[in-house]
Amino acid sequence: MKIDGTSYRSIWLNDDGWSVNIIDQTRLPHEFHVERLTTVDQAAHAIKAMLVRGAPLIGATAAYGVCLGLRADAGDVAFNKMCEALIATRPTAVNLRWAIRAMQDLILPLPESERVSAAYEKATQICDEDVAINSAIGDHGLGVIEAIWEKKGKVGPLNILTHCNAGWLATVDWGTALSPIYKAHDAGIPVHVWVDETRPRNQGAHLTCWELGKHGVEHTLIVDNVGGHLMQHGQVDLCITGTDRTTAAGDVCNKIGTYLKALAAKDNNVPFYVALPGPTIDWEIDDGVKDIPIEIRDSHEVDYIQGKDSAGQVSEVRILPEESSSANYAFDVTPACLVTGLITERGVADASKEGLARLYDRLEYKAS
Amino acid sequence: MKIDGTSYRSIWLNDDGWSVNIIDQTRLPHEFHVERLTTVDQAAHAIKAMLVRGAPLIGATAAYGVCLGLRADAGDVAFNKMCEALIATRPTAVNLRWAIRAMQDLILPLPESERVSAAYEKATQICDEDVAINSAIGDHGLGVIEAIWEKKGKVGPLNILTHCNAGWLATVDWGTALSPIYKAHDAGIPVHVWVDETRPRNQGAHLTCWELGKHGVEHTLIVDNVGGHLMQHGQVDLCITGTDRTTAAGDVCNKIGTYLKALAAKDNNVPFYVALPGPTIDWEIDDGVKDIPIEIRDSHEVDYIQGKDSAGQVSEVRILPEESSSANYAFDVTPACLVTGLITERGVADASKEGLARLYDRLEYKAS
Repeated sequence: MKIDGTSYRSIWLNDDGWSVNIIDQTRLPHEFHVERLTTVDQAAHAIKAMLVRGAPLIGATAAYGVCLGLRADAGDVAFNKMCEALIATRPTAVNLRWAIRAMQDLILPLPESERVSAAYEKATQICDEDVAINSAIGDHGLGVIEAIWEKKGKVGPLNILTHCNAGWLATVDWGTALSPIYKAHDAGIPVHVWVDETRPRNQGAHLTCWELGKHGVEHTLIVDNVGGHLMQHGQVDLCITGTDRTTAAGDVCNKIGTYLKALAAKDNNVPFYVALPGPTIDWEIDDGVKDIPIEIRDSHEVDYIQGKDSAGQVSEVRILPEESSSANYAFDVTPACLVTGLITERGVADASKEGLARLYDRLEYKAS
Repeated sequence: MKIDGTSYRSIWLNDDGWSVNIIDQTRLPHEFHVERLTTVDQAAHAIKAMLVRGAPLIGATAAYGVCLGLRADAGDVAFNKMCEALIATRPTAVNLRWAIRAMQDLILPLPESERVSAAYEKATQICDEDVAINSAIGDHGLGVIEAIWEKKGKVGPLNILTHCNAGWLATVDWGTALSPIYKAHDAGIPVHVWVDETRPRNQGAHLTCWELGKHGVEHTLIVDNVGGHLMQHGQVDLCITGTDRTTAAGDVCNKIGTYLKALAAKDNNVPFYVALPGPTIDWEIDDGVKDIPIEIRDSHEVDYIQGKDSAGQVSEVRILPEESSSANYAFDVTPACLVTGLITERGVADASKEGLARLYDRLEYKAS
């Protein structure tokens, strides 16, 4: 998407044809800093230290990391070692493991002399496929938004609430939840986005506000407590969020707090959509509340908040009394009965076994 | 309640018999500072700058402010002027206006020589009455907690979720929502409190955690997004919040985000109680969502977060990109159908016209 009028992806090859640029997302929104990666170690650090985040972008960064590593040493031993090191940076990231395994399947059979160019080709392909999937999600989501805009009589802004960051910064381009919003904006629909700040890490305030603002989409930050009140008063026309994992029955595991917004949407007859690429559907699980383990992260994320201090530096302040402690649940599960529809790259599905089965053959995923 | 073993109120007379001590709540939880008030101007500043907050405590501070002012000048002109100045510090605070008007009714008919001592007597009475009301709320709430504790088979901690700060710091002592929790703790029930941080002003993190910790009540800070997840997983036995305004039909206007927790409680069959003193019932309104105007406060509270910085100083950081803006809705309304019961100083009422009518004669309030 655009930053002040110039098109960007979240990861791209430099003009030199081999080094890789990423945006250091830990410095956003207060500093826009492009980091140049020239070694596999730098790529691994970028993933581990969360300069890049979001499943698709992590996978893409790992793939380019392999390319950089192969330039230094294309032998089997070094190659396999770097692959395991990359996987270890974020052990639970499914796309990361998938990207690395795809690289290994491709590279190991090749003679060393052909490995570097084949790796770059594959990394580019991984990026382009992600962009195509997210663009397709956007196209199908645009249909949803257009229908609601028609129903509203095309009057006033179309108010969309989103939680966390499922934007282009989390993918290679377009994003998932924000892709339909960008498509609607670019199509001339006057969208206005209510952005949940999304404590504890504040990805809404830090990333979603930044990327919407840079692309020129109207938006307003709200604290996570506000959405229900807005829905009670007709100020939200629809909600769109992303998801980290979707069960075969349509339950949605997403950033903590998503469930509360879905409850409020249901209580006020506000459509609640979730955008996702097919590969994030977990066909082995039906009941998400029961069967998806919820990560409990370091409580430092709750106790301290990062922002720009009075000296203009990015720093953090502690909000909790020294003698108290906190718990940091990272995700929650929204039952399918609260989800109006799942926006995928293949179309919009009901949040149910039958709905998903109409778009996907689970065997195609089981096989992979 | 207690601070490290010593009993405190949130406002008290000094040993000199005339100057007034308050806790500077703007410095909590990182600094415990007792501020000595010796003039009406200092009292007015304490209210305006929110060194004291919470309707009952504001009223008590204003009453003592009148005492301090009368010591300097007990004449009618000065007296009425200071009363108007005190009311102007927080124009929408009902208890403040009520306390000042009560002072005026008492003082104006008296000869100047008797005014100071009468004022101190009245201020002390206002404080003692607040303590008595809150203690009674606690006693009735204790009954609710005991019943749930019995039902749970008296096993494990009893998990109570609360939102914002309706504790002793918001009143003269005991608090409203926290009063039953203190009574249960003091009665030996192993309560554990999930404390919502309560963005934007973080009264949960800053004040509720502090006062529970100082009294010795087990508690854990969570971000406002977490409560729904905990309720889905049986980790909340009941919720208790306060309220700023309750309609005659039992709708509850409280800190923004209360509604979302009430929805989650309903969805998971978790009892949701609201604690309140009778005088905060607004007998003129039934439909809170429709008829209670919601204050929109300065967006600075959303854009900046206060805490302790790396140098140990209380300072603030900006979380929002410079080019974005925010909206700061301060309260929301929880419809009566989501409220299990209203815990008042007269007993526990159903959240309905009939429930409240069983405890209160609305005429007694209309008259005042």
